[in-house]
Amino acid sequence: MQRTRSWWGWGWDDQALSDAECTAYGRLLGSHADQPVPIPQVTDLQLRPSRIEVPKPLGHLSFSDPLSRASHTFGKAYRDVVRALNAQLDYPPDLVARPTTEADVINILDWATSANVAVVPYGGGSSVVGAVECPGDGFDAVVSLDLSAMDRVLEVDELSQAACIQAGALGPILEDQLRPHGYTLRHFPQSFEFSTLGGWLATRAGGHYATLHTHIDDFVESMRVVTPSGLSESWRLPGSGAGPSPDRLMLGSEGTLGVITEAWMRIQRRPEFRKSVSVRFAHGTSAMAAVREIAQSGLHPANCRLLDPGEAALAGSATNGEWVLVLGMESAHHPVEAGVGALIEIAQGCGGVLAGSQATEGRSTSSGERGDGVTSGETRDGAADAWRSTFLRMPYVRDAMARMSAITETFETATTWDRVEDLYKSVNTEIGSAVEQITGAPGLINCRFTHVYPDGAAPYFTVIAAGRLGSELAMWDEIKAASMEVLVRHRATVTHHHAVGRDHRPGYDRQRPELFAAALRAVKRELDPAGIMNPGVLVDQIPPKT
Amino acid sequence: MQRTRSWWGWGWDDQALSDAECTAYGRLLGSHADQPVPIPQVTDLQLRPSRIEVPKPLGHLSFSDPLSRASHTFGKAYRDVVRALNAQLDYPPDLVARPTTEADVINILDWATSANVAVVPYGGGSSVVGAVECPGDGFDAVVSLDLSAMDRVLEVDELSQAACIQAGALGPILEDQLRPHGYTLRHFPQSFEFSTLGGWLATRAGGHYATLHTHIDDFVESMRVVTPSGLSESWRLPGSGAGPSPDRLMLGSEGTLGVITEAWMRIQRRPEFRKSVSVRFAHGTSAMAAVREIAQSGLHPANCRLLDPGEAALAGSATNGEWVLVLGMESAHHPVEAGVGALIEIAQGCGGVLAGSQATEGRSTSSGERGDGVTSGETRDGAADAWRSTFLRMPYVRDAMARMSAITETFETATTWDRVEDLYKSVNTEIGSAVEQITGAPGLINCRFTHVYPDGAAPYFTVIAAGRLGSELAMWDEIKAASMEVLVRHRATVTHHHAVGRDHRPGYDRQRPELFAAALRAVKRELDPAGIMNPGVLVDQIPPKT
Repeated sequence: MQRTRSWWGWGWDDQALSDAECTAYGRLLGSHADQPVPIPQVTDLQLRPSRIEVPKPLGHLSFSDPLSRASHTFGKAYRDVVRALNAQLDYPPDLVARPTTEADVINILDWATSANVAVVPYGGGSSVVGAVECPGDGFDAVVSLDLSAMDRVLEVDELSQAACIQAGALGPILEDQLRPHGYTLRHFPQSFEFSTLGGWLATRAGGHYATLHTHIDDFVESMRVVTPSGLSESWRLPGSGAGPSPDRLMLGSEGTLGVITEAWMRIQRRPEFRKSVSVRFAHGTSAMAAVREIAQSGLHPANCRLLDPGEAALAGSATNGEWVLVLGMESAHHPVEAGVGALIEIAQGCGGVLAGSQATEGRSTSSGERGDGVTSGETRDGAADAWRSTFLRMPYVRDAMARMSAITETFETATTWDRVEDLYKSVNTEIGSAVEQITGAPGLINCRFTHVYPDGAAPYFTVIAAGRLGSELAMWDEIKAASMEVLVRHRATVTHHHAVGRDHRPGYDRQRPELFAAALRAVKRELDPAGIMNPGVLVDQIPPKT
Repeated sequence: MQRTRSWWGWGWDDQALSDAECTAYGRLLGSHADQPVPIPQVTDLQLRPSRIEVPKPLGHLSFSDPLSRASHTFGKAYRDVVRALNAQLDYPPDLVARPTTEADVINILDWATSANVAVVPYGGGSSVVGAVECPGDGFDAVVSLDLSAMDRVLEVDELSQAACIQAGALGPILEDQLRPHGYTLRHFPQSFEFSTLGGWLATRAGGHYATLHTHIDDFVESMRVVTPSGLSESWRLPGSGAGPSPDRLMLGSEGTLGVITEAWMRIQRRPEFRKSVSVRFAHGTSAMAAVREIAQSGLHPANCRLLDPGEAALAGSATNGEWVLVLGMESAHHPVEAGVGALIEIAQGCGGVLAGSQATEGRSTSSGERGDGVTSGETRDGAADAWRSTFLRMPYVRDAMARMSAITETFETATTWDRVEDLYKSVNTEIGSAVEQITGAPGLINCRFTHVYPDGAAPYFTVIAAGRLGSELAMWDEIKAASMEVLVRHRATVTHHHAVGRDHRPGYDRQRPELFAAALRAVKRELDPAGIMNPGVLVDQIPPKT
């Protein structure tokens, strides 16, 4: 049987928690609600009527049924789920267009430009920053451009270890096509199952590797982008110093300049050697020192995730106030025992205690790798195991909590080592009080470091608090504003890998150099003169030309 | 005694080859000339008179004496040296300005904008692509903005391993300031002594590392750039996904958007463990296979330079038609013996024969590190030793050959592995015939791979041919045009790390996506509305506004 995607929440319909599970989680985490909010039926949503006729030549690509429109109204942020549960779909796209070829994309953009229609590129729809919803003020209609039918690996160059992949391929779909060749892209964000290559590129997604190649950016060889002004294609180059990188201008452009249709990506042989360990620390300061030393050692572990006590407790890997550091190395070429030994030595030197360890040497038969550097199969230690399971389950639990009127959301950042510990403390203290003040009760604020660098780290915070039915969204928005304020004050990035979208604009506008914003606006005027591409994201909407 | 820089050729005056050495080299390499062209005296140059008065408030920063103007007329390409030897300085800058503060830079740009004066940012003046010479058509004058007085390391953040460095610092000057802290930037291009941080950033310079961090780009944390429209400063961030990277737009902008005044750079502890080996191969195909396998292994050697037989012979490291692969690893943290062992195993598996090996374990006291991944001191094997010596001497020999009317120049590129060997053969065959046809005699065409990637390599070609006094420049220009044609046909980048400047524009214009060119022009109009910044580089000169 074909599984169906949830129109209102994360992932698969059949993975959503039952009402009983929702209630149990709600009790566990102090929800004020007695029972979960019911999930509205799509047929009851009363969506604003579609304001546009399906253009004839694009008719076979276009859908305006309520399910298509409802499921493309939001991304999958907490605030999206709450609004969906409240049947509060104010700005559904008027049309969902599903191109099957690049020519379709060009035709759709041409039509949209001439018809004053805003276009929102849509990959897997997993945005947690409001990047795929569009009020479309000033436009006659909004089209959600769903790339998911363009999901083929078009070519594999085994000598260069690179593949040409269509932008609409979801993680598992592209990995399934690379696997028979013995290759993998090894980009496993938490959203892996429900996000696409094009979405990763447009948002500079963070993936599998905790060090070195933390973002998808580093795996790009060349890109094809359809803009309203035409097609842009860069050359396949392993490296170049010919002017500013054309690809780096498109990476992170979040659909505001054009639609990424395909890319040549660096792929890798599947790892045959893997080892993963976990180390416990009594104190945050020593745990952070260990992570810093590892990040500066040049050992380049694939996994280096630090969980603070709250996060470790939530993941079931420590419940006694300890910090847990999960370390892992992998290689398709050579054993990693010695490397992991060196990592352990650093961690122990900083006061860490080895807690679990598991190795795979030789060919692995597991095909179920996914998610944040932790693999399925029997190759993990207990802490990593618990962590992976929690990691993939987390968004479903978040939805269950949302149904119990609880506030459950994350925000993430990165900053240099001289500020990391201060920032961690500030967030705990200040957002801790904000949560108490705003919701009337203390909440949980957990943290993990998802990615680390020689010069800093990327802390990822989870906030869990009891909300009140009807006020939870306003409460979260206030907490979110407070968190952005803390980040900006510490000059920590407003997002390390979730992107800017519409939700991070206030912080982003203060973070980026004003002259870069001016440059970006100038580029947008050039590539998208009518301003139809994802208006309001990254830069203010360009008023449609008259 | 203060050493003086050569106004006409590479490096230090006292390192230039004597007339007798020039003659000997000329004979060795088949020059038609009997004796070297004399070096003109600056006082005999009859430079076009400076067309502009020194503006009063900037008077103390401005120089219009013949030596200052002559030495800032060209970079250090072969065609620059030949023209200098011919006293053919058609477009000397009218003024050399040497700001000592960022405020000076702002004042100079403000004045230049108002006075219709073109500004050419100038670091160490080592450009080999015509990036610092400027005809200045349509402008009332041209100023060479020499940043070399802004050469301080302003701050070192030891926890984050980062330093704030002024853009005008030459390689040795910034390393001298980092050394007392125990740190190094480890960016050692061939031009190390005569190029600056700002120049490296503006041109996306390639440096020390043959793999992984091949370009300076990867070491940038944040940048300050003075544009004619104002100051742009990015935040210090170890990583970020907040929109397209502001820094990546400035990296490679070659002085066309503004003047980089300082940057926070990732620095490293000085390596304590090093090992270097050389391996010989009978055949290019197997040597390239070894390099490819090493680049795809994830071992990340610091050095991985492949010399073809001609290059190896020139370096004195092989004279029997063998290819030589120089491999090196280094670490501040852990021994590298095992890693080098793994590299050797790959090379031997591809048919390579170990030729030399030398290790340093434990603290190194050498302070003379520089140049292309090979260190001074006693830590090298014979081939690496010969190579380094040739490498640093090469530009002086090039100048000697130029004085003997010989053509001696390089060009470099990068392409994916599926094309590398074809490209190598095409260059040898086609540029070989071009040289013979153009100069009337066969020349030498050598190649080394300077940087390698999982998906490709960066071949660096040297052309040596006997020219004819008076025609050598025209001959080289024809050879250069032919070489650019070969690169473009193979879709190999027109430059891997030498930059575009004015010389590579024809190839660059065909390489970059046309829409990216449009984007770049739009950015330039925004940041440099009067078009005064290095006009003609990267994009066509914007006509000065009237």
